[in-house]
Amino acid sequence: MSEKVKQALVGCGALLFGEFTLASGKKSQYYIDIKKASTDPKVLRLVAREMANEIRRQGIQVDRIAGVVLGSIPLAVALSLETGTSFIMVRKEKKDHGTSKLIEGVFRRGEKVLIVEDVITSAGSALFALDLLRSEGMVIEHVFSVVDREEGGKAKLLEAGAELTALVTATEVLGN
Amino acid sequence: MSEKVKQALVGCGALLFGEFTLASGKKSQYYIDIKKASTDPKVLRLVAREMANEIRRQGIQVDRIAGVVLGSIPLAVALSLETGTSFIMVRKEKKDHGTSKLIEGVFRRGEKVLIVEDVITSAGSALFALDLLRSEGMVIEHVFSVVDREEGGKAKLLEAGAELTALVTATEVLGN
Repeated sequence: MSEKVKQALVGCGALLFGEFTLASGKKSQYYIDIKKASTDPKVLRLVAREMANEIRRQGIQVDRIAGVVLGSIPLAVALSLETGTSFIMVRKEKKDHGTSKLIEGVFRRGEKVLIVEDVITSAGSALFALDLLRSEGMVIEHVFSVVDREEGGKAKLLEAGAELTALVTATEVLGN
Repeated sequence: MSEKVKQALVGCGALLFGEFTLASGKKSQYYIDIKKASTDPKVLRLVAREMANEIRRQGIQVDRIAGVVLGSIPLAVALSLETGTSFIMVRKEKKDHGTSKLIEGVFRRGEKVLIVEDVITSAGSALFALDLLRSEGMVIEHVFSVVDREEGGKAKLLEAGAELTALVTATEVLGN
C-alpha cells in the first residue's frame, strides 16, 4: 500500500527529497506539496482506492465521509465516489457574509463519520473537525490520511478517541 | 440531458417546488439546495458524466478544469476523475493567515481552462474566476454549470467572451 502511494506522490511531483527548511523553522529531508497529488485525477483515484480497500480491510462502518476545507475536499469527494458514501465538508471558519455554515452537506445524529485528511502533522484540522462533528451528535472513531508526518498527530487523535490510519508515514517516505 | 439531471436533483431533495421567497426578496416557484446534490455521490457522478458527454459533443478542448471554492469543488473533482483532466481550485478571498493562494493546483499560461459551477444566477463567482485566470494567462471560452437560473448570468458571461452551457435551465426546471 505505502510503496505504491509513495511512488505516485513522487511521480506527480508532490513528494520531493532534499534539504528543506519548513515554515516552522525545522529542517526536513522531504517536502510534500500535496495539492499536486490531490488535483491530479490519476493520483487522487489511486489514493481513494487504497483508502477504500483499507476501510474494507479494517471492517470499518462508514455512514458518512468528512473532509476539512479546503485541502481535504478533493479526497473526500474521490472517496465518496469510490465507496458510494455521501460526504460533508467542514469549514474551519465562517465567512463574514453569506449563508455559509461550518458543516456543508446532509448528516444525522448517531452517524459514524470517517474524517479524511491529506497530510497529518499535529492533527489540528482533524481535531477541530472531530470536536465539531461530535458536538452535532456524530460518532468519530477513525481518521484516514494520505500522509502521516509523524509529528504527534496520531497520539493526539488517539487521546481524543480516534485511530489514525495513514497510507504513507514519514518513516516510509524516508525508507528506501 | 436536462430531464435526467432534473429528476436526479428532485430525487435527492436538492430541487423543491412551491412558493419560496429568496434572500433577495424575490419570489420563486422553485428552490435549489445544490449541496444536497453535490455531496451525494450518485447524483454527482451522473452530473459529471453528463458534463463530460456535453464537452465531447461540443468538441471543446479542455486542458484544465477550474472550480470556485467551495460550492463548485465537488463538481470540479468529479469531472476531473471522469475525464482524466487535472483541476485547479479558485478561492474568492485569501485567508488572513497561512500560505493559502487564490489559485490552488498546477497551471500554465496559455492553457484552455473550463470553469465549472453548481448554480449560475448572476454569474458573479464565474466572472471572478474568469478574470483571475485570464490575468494569469489562461484562456477561458466556456463555463459549464449544473443549473442556470436564467437571471442574467449567461449574458454577462457572453459579454466577457465565455459561453455558458447548463445541464438544466430554470425554464426546464419549471417545464412539465
